[in-house]
Amino acid sequence: MPTFHAYAADEAQAEFKPFEFDPGELLDDQVEIDVASCGICHSDLSMLDNEWGMTAYPFVGGHEATGTVAAVGGHVPNLVVGDTVGLGWFSRSCMHCVECLGGSHNRCVNAPEQTIVHRHGGFADKVRCHWGWATPLPAGLDPMKAGPLFCGGITAFTPFIQHGINALSRVGVIGIGGLGHLALMFAKGFGADVTAFSTSASKEGEAKKLGAHHFVNTREDGALEKLAGTFDLILNTTNARLDWDAYVNALAPGGVLHTVGAVTDTFGVSNSFPMILGQKSLSASPLGSPATTRKMLAFCARHQIAPVTQSYKLSQINDAFEQLRTGSPRYRLVLERD
Amino acid sequence: MPTFHAYAADEAQAEFKPFEFDPGELLDDQVEIDVASCGICHSDLSMLDNEWGMTAYPFVGGHEATGTVAAVGGHVPNLVVGDTVGLGWFSRSCMHCVECLGGSHNRCVNAPEQTIVHRHGGFADKVRCHWGWATPLPAGLDPMKAGPLFCGGITAFTPFIQHGINALSRVGVIGIGGLGHLALMFAKGFGADVTAFSTSASKEGEAKKLGAHHFVNTREDGALEKLAGTFDLILNTTNARLDWDAYVNALAPGGVLHTVGAVTDTFGVSNSFPMILGQKSLSASPLGSPATTRKMLAFCARHQIAPVTQSYKLSQINDAFEQLRTGSPRYRLVLERD
Repeated sequence: MPTFHAYAADEAQAEFKPFEFDPGELLDDQVEIDVASCGICHSDLSMLDNEWGMTAYPFVGGHEATGTVAAVGGHVPNLVVGDTVGLGWFSRSCMHCVECLGGSHNRCVNAPEQTIVHRHGGFADKVRCHWGWATPLPAGLDPMKAGPLFCGGITAFTPFIQHGINALSRVGVIGIGGLGHLALMFAKGFGADVTAFSTSASKEGEAKKLGAHHFVNTREDGALEKLAGTFDLILNTTNARLDWDAYVNALAPGGVLHTVGAVTDTFGVSNSFPMILGQKSLSASPLGSPATTRKMLAFCARHQIAPVTQSYKLSQINDAFEQLRTGSPRYRLVLERD
Repeated sequence: MPTFHAYAADEAQAEFKPFEFDPGELLDDQVEIDVASCGICHSDLSMLDNEWGMTAYPFVGGHEATGTVAAVGGHVPNLVVGDTVGLGWFSRSCMHCVECLGGSHNRCVNAPEQTIVHRHGGFADKVRCHWGWATPLPAGLDPMKAGPLFCGGITAFTPFIQHGINALSRVGVIGIGGLGHLALMFAKGFGADVTAFSTSASKEGEAKKLGAHHFVNTREDGALEKLAGTFDLILNTTNARLDWDAYVNALAPGGVLHTVGAVTDTFGVSNSFPMILGQKSLSASPLGSPATTRKMLAFCARHQIAPVTQSYKLSQINDAFEQLRTGSPRYRLVLERD
């Protein structure tokens, strides 16, 4: 009987404790990953606390895992034992709906399986997924740092593809955190003109090191008004309800305000006129497809882009979550196998 | 001294009365159009009543004019006396900003001149404009019916170009009025699967004659819910604040809710999650560029699409406005020169 050794919480806000479970037989289309490292995403915390009402306990989080393929099912067409791969939020999609067949597996309409929803994730020695969601890590990316690319990274990357960002684009990034710090590096990698928006004046130096040409302290009066008509893309990486009218005003004609931050309040303008006159849009996106993930990893390897991480041992998982709850990680926490 | 014979209102909500004025010298880059017909747009009424606070009196409305070029300035490169042309909302753009040079003259950033804003429009025997905004009418379009294409038409047409609508697209149109009835014909012309949304059950037959394959009475409970995940584009042609969440829910993954109706209230969702999960967008657009106008006219001629109009003589302008204020024109009112 196989046994996985994980860390699980028994209820909302509880500490993680060692937890063993039998994962059952490996399915024909699954791979089993020997976990090397696993990032901690804010949604692990939301799931731990059952904020979205869909958490099953004992809860084993972790959906930014990297590691080595330890076993493959009988119908896995592309991976072999020993391959280095990463796994993100999705662990299976139906592969046959029009979205999957069209390459947008992240929009699968048949209730795609999510790595930590009603199943056990990467805060463990092993984790499993459908072969389509185990993405090979190219040479040049450090498995001990690459985990956050598989959720935070691909989430911040997809809008660049969706909106055709290139070296002529003027890109603004709202929030310099787990997603935002990656978005700044991505924008620089695309060769764009990059602006960081933050409420923390103290982050200016770091933002510029990450790739920002310009820094805007949005707490300053009139900071956004001065930038009217400037941006082709403004990418919101925060969960807060912001002054969307002011950001739409800062868009150039034809520009788009895109959120990957899960804003649980109004996302829209108070009057459609500014959007109409400037032919402006609001958009949003969920993670990314397997194909886009592969492209992102190749891009990161070529541009030497890696998440800025702070590492803990997996056995220190509760310390890491304490930092996530109370502190301000710069920028992504990663658990390494003991 | 040249004299134009127009109809003007002296104040908000006043009747139009005969009004003569000296237009001054024709500028080098202008053409003078001998007006054959002029559509009445709802924005003529908004301007008459100074709803947008930018009306100058005496007010001569009219921005859906067709007619014959009667004179050309010395630096007009493309038109000669006798050409049949149409004129819409814009009567001049700077031609040299990045938007004009990029082909998006309708997004000109240097305060483009608007036909009825602080100048006199097409409710007259003659009207002038910059050569770039006098668009030749192709053979096969009736000048006595084509006027509404130059404002209502191009406004409803631009989203089809912006969003790459084609014969595989599933298109919904909200509102079956001046813009909506044209949008239905356009959608049919693009070969799309066409759905009309209306609060008037009585319009079902007409909507289907115009091109709709499906009709949805949005007053019916659950009508929109049943269509979850259906549309690539939903085009709003009304000015009302609608249940945007319900329409976003009716979009397919990757779909877009686009407004050309001037909604002066919130345009947005109450929670970003449905937009994120389905990679959905909200967008908006203003009229259209000269190049898109030419393409629209050729498309209309080839598909034999013409606005459905009710005609009045120019001297009956007050009767026409009375119908616009109190009635429900089906679908566009046009004034013909006496």
